[in-house]
Amino acid sequence: MNTLELINQNHSFGGTVTFYKHASRACKTDMNFSVYLPPQALAEPNKKLPVLFWLSGLTCTEENMMAKAGAQQYAAELGLILIAPDTSPRDLNLPKENESWDFGSGAGFYINASKSPWNSHYQMEDYVVSELFDLVGEQFPADMNKAGIFGHSMGGHGAITLAFKYPEKYKSLSAFAPICAPTLCLWGKKAFAGYLGSDKNIWAEHDAHLLIKKTAARLPLLIDQGSEDPFLQSQLLPDHLVNAANDIDYPMHYRLQTGYDHSYYFIATFMEDHLRHHAKQLA
Amino acid sequence: MNTLELINQNHSFGGTVTFYKHASRACKTDMNFSVYLPPQALAEPNKKLPVLFWLSGLTCTEENMMAKAGAQQYAAELGLILIAPDTSPRDLNLPKENESWDFGSGAGFYINASKSPWNSHYQMEDYVVSELFDLVGEQFPADMNKAGIFGHSMGGHGAITLAFKYPEKYKSLSAFAPICAPTLCLWGKKAFAGYLGSDKNIWAEHDAHLLIKKTAARLPLLIDQGSEDPFLQSQLLPDHLVNAANDIDYPMHYRLQTGYDHSYYFIATFMEDHLRHHAKQLA
Repeated sequence: MNTLELINQNHSFGGTVTFYKHASRACKTDMNFSVYLPPQALAEPNKKLPVLFWLSGLTCTEENMMAKAGAQQYAAELGLILIAPDTSPRDLNLPKENESWDFGSGAGFYINASKSPWNSHYQMEDYVVSELFDLVGEQFPADMNKAGIFGHSMGGHGAITLAFKYPEKYKSLSAFAPICAPTLCLWGKKAFAGYLGSDKNIWAEHDAHLLIKKTAARLPLLIDQGSEDPFLQSQLLPDHLVNAANDIDYPMHYRLQTGYDHSYYFIATFMEDHLRHHAKQLA
Repeated sequence: MNTLELINQNHSFGGTVTFYKHASRACKTDMNFSVYLPPQALAEPNKKLPVLFWLSGLTCTEENMMAKAGAQQYAAELGLILIAPDTSPRDLNLPKENESWDFGSGAGFYINASKSPWNSHYQMEDYVVSELFDLVGEQFPADMNKAGIFGHSMGGHGAITLAFKYPEKYKSLSAFAPICAPTLCLWGKKAFAGYLGSDKNIWAEHDAHLLIKKTAARLPLLIDQGSEDPFLQSQLLPDHLVNAANDIDYPMHYRLQTGYDHSYYFIATFMEDHLRHHAKQLA
């Protein structure tokens, strides 16, 4: 049984945003995450509610989504629990841990590192899919048969790849400006080479546009992407995923949003649509 | 005519959040502010829209409200322009400018300093009421006969006192967790002594619970205050304002919100009510 240390709690739209720290078995260090419990969870603590896991992007922590995405008001209306883990282990004194914003601290990429020294702690796939998933089921009034996943940028990559790999766990899926083909962009190549080594067959197990052809999942996938996102053509490469989805008639709704960039201003604008998409899938 | 330097622009709920810098006449240094133009302003640039000035609290900048308050979605619905100035001049190399979080940089208190060295630059009352007000009328499609003001904490103090002093300018008013009696709390005493000197008669011109008995304004005043706000009884002292309002039958609606604290999680929860309050007054 995990012991959670409560770091901070704020009331929000009739519910509570709470920040926790705990000793992670998967990452062998303390990990942080945040939880939004909607008013329904406070009113009827014995009733289990659908739960949505949010995976953040590069440099983010467990705080960004709760503070900036405007999700709580819709989670409150729809009766959804929100969970947001940090984006990596931190403060491990590993070489190059804090040297760049797109690798190491704040850039765990939601994969299990196999290369030393990262493999000792950077086990974010196990952390999110198993440890945190189980912990949420134990500690909060969450119906783990009604769990969904979504995220932004690196976290959009995480949400799509984990939903494709673990269809038994995630029953709803969406993404904002996801990294769609990490084996083909600099962010992904740097991360995969550093965490996984040079074997491209292993990289392929963590690339949305490749995985989509192998997954048994047929979760309707809503993607919003800003047309003025500065990373659109260099790092995110959504065309690769759109084409792969079209090839196999995957139920994907890709929306290019004119004028929008990569920021939380973009995310907040379309958050309502995403939460309604998840609520419908998890109903 | 002011020249505005565009620092950054993000699309948000069909409109734009834009960050500007400009050479301020009142503060004799560069000042920053942000603007939300709702979709109505982009669709009909010749039509003038109501405009709301937001004054932030201690340590904040022109960014906090735009990033965290969830205001844009309702401004978009209601057709309101939002303006958020920074909370003080910055980077002036004044002694003690950056020494504490409740005085100097980030803590202008929306008053005109008379004491040296602050009086050379800290002219936030003139800046907000005259310079920025006029600049907004010149540069944006804002109907300056339909201008309102609101704010949080130090900015709630600013909004209430400026609305009371300048009823010809502000036609709607509200506040989140305002400093209601700055002449009686440590934050206010420190700021007023530092910026204005020791004359309590001058302090009284910037204290909401004293000004309310002298103002000609009868703007309906909506105040939300969290019951778990750690500054409630030490710094904010709303009872003084509530009692003064009751004494003169001032149209004030004070709401103590159970469980809420002093954060933007609290502000975001009640932002919709505040924007509807302003839209009604400015209709």
